[in-house]
Amino acid sequence: MSLITVGTMAFDAIETPFGKVEKIIGGSATYVAYAASNFINKVQQISIVGYDFPEDEMQEMKKRGIIMEGVEVVPDKKSFFWSGRYHLDMNTRDTLITDLNVLEDFNPIVPESYQGTEFLMLGNLMPKLQLSVINQLRVRPKLIVLDTMNFWMDIALDDLKAVLKKIDVLLVNDGEARQLSGEVSLVKAAKVIMNMGPRFLIIKKGEHGALLFHENHVFFAPALPLEEVFDPTGAGDTFAGGFIGYLAKTKDISFENMKTAIIVGSAMASFCVEKFGPDRLKEISKADIDERLSEFVQLVNFDIDLV
Amino acid sequence: MSLITVGTMAFDAIETPFGKVEKIIGGSATYVAYAASNFINKVQQISIVGYDFPEDEMQEMKKRGIIMEGVEVVPDKKSFFWSGRYHLDMNTRDTLITDLNVLEDFNPIVPESYQGTEFLMLGNLMPKLQLSVINQLRVRPKLIVLDTMNFWMDIALDDLKAVLKKIDVLLVNDGEARQLSGEVSLVKAAKVIMNMGPRFLIIKKGEHGALLFHENHVFFAPALPLEEVFDPTGAGDTFAGGFIGYLAKTKDISFENMKTAIIVGSAMASFCVEKFGPDRLKEISKADIDERLSEFVQLVNFDIDLV
Repeated sequence: MSLITVGTMAFDAIETPFGKVEKIIGGSATYVAYAASNFINKVQQISIVGYDFPEDEMQEMKKRGIIMEGVEVVPDKKSFFWSGRYHLDMNTRDTLITDLNVLEDFNPIVPESYQGTEFLMLGNLMPKLQLSVINQLRVRPKLIVLDTMNFWMDIALDDLKAVLKKIDVLLVNDGEARQLSGEVSLVKAAKVIMNMGPRFLIIKKGEHGALLFHENHVFFAPALPLEEVFDPTGAGDTFAGGFIGYLAKTKDISFENMKTAIIVGSAMASFCVEKFGPDRLKEISKADIDERLSEFVQLVNFDIDLV
Repeated sequence: MSLITVGTMAFDAIETPFGKVEKIIGGSATYVAYAASNFINKVQQISIVGYDFPEDEMQEMKKRGIIMEGVEVVPDKKSFFWSGRYHLDMNTRDTLITDLNVLEDFNPIVPESYQGTEFLMLGNLMPKLQLSVINQLRVRPKLIVLDTMNFWMDIALDDLKAVLKKIDVLLVNDGEARQLSGEVSLVKAAKVIMNMGPRFLIIKKGEHGALLFHENHVFFAPALPLEEVFDPTGAGDTFAGGFIGYLAKTKDISFENMKTAIIVGSAMASFCVEKFGPDRLKEISKADIDERLSEFVQLVNFDIDLV
């Protein structure tokens, strides 16, 4: 099984009610790749970094089976940098700084060796670039998952709609689902969005879990109630990485298996928020993941004899 | 099995984005009783109404096995009246009018025939009155469930804390759990609140479902994603009524059975919001409830082979 992930590799500076870090590793493709590498050992990364991205981080990724051939290193520019501050509820944040740096010139090229891949995860990025990656693939992947955000709905809606026609699974949060569809009810929003192209829609609700829609079916995955949410940065990307990593491992893209994949994604996200940056994703073991998955089973398991 | 429910029986005027009603039946004990009467046929009501509360509504309640001996009718005063307007998201509302009327003199008296009841549902009410009902019962019920709200935390916190020491299950929403505990994390909030008395805590999160805490266990019940939420008024009381009605019917107050009871409460709440007022609760059949419960099973059911 092979998986291409496309997105940013970056530096973040983060302030939460529980602490502050000046410059740590971040980026959507970083989180996706680390999460997915817990399930498959051939993650084909497409991204761009500057001269300042640490060589030891690149080595760490390679060691975990993440293939870096599609990662462009720009020798005379800095890596993408984002800085944000979370509010007390940890569900909302203010962006303080966005330094595009290398991202201004990003033109993702699919290496020849990546051709024929079965799974494609398009991280949050300019829709034109997401479309360009799809168009470069000579054989359509078995499953294309796309993450996006309200920013692209504001400034590049037509491009976004064009790429939506080409994908299988869309990932958005509840506010974005409402914006994209013009519907307040998430059930109605899902119908409108699935008419735009994707056969599956995942609506992420942060600490309130996630919904998976497909045809007339809906599945709800809870988020694990946590004592401490240390840093929510990357939780959505980690969710995506766990989701597609599990699908790529099991090679089963049925609705039933996607339910399980969403629980796996939620479990990975619950690890991500326990530390600043992607560190927690590097240290967890298979046993840790299994134990966390058991907690999810416990969390929602009930018996019912119809009344 | 017998169940005492204490709370208001009232008139509401409601405005939602989907419509407006001038004067319909409302009140916490009304919703609780109608919901619970779908499961048990001996609901012992304690409330107060004015001369204007419709006789045919009282008859309808009696027909459903709701015993009205504990409902005081004040001949020269009007019933409690509440008026509110919901925002577009239906999660928040503004109170427009609160006419206490008969509620100013409410001094709940437990009729002799109610003594020995096994289940007690204390609807949202002044904590002193809730405590007075507990103190009037010569045999402590098997299970005491209490609903309250932020208003009482603001103006009668000491009274509320006194009654919390005497109950088994507390029902609050997420904001109220945070206010009562002083903790942002709901997991931490639950620990603090369970130290105040209740062995079980249910945190209601509206369209985001509900959490049940007990000792070190947590259970999550989703809300059913609905195409239309017509009127959320009474949904929390209906949830409570379904919850305690199911427990009273099954006579099993274990954590395992409470999980099922919360799903039943969520199912009843999902009916409640489909029409203005409690009307929907009067027309549903056992088959409707069973079908809705199956939808909940589908909603959260997944298979997992540990990875």
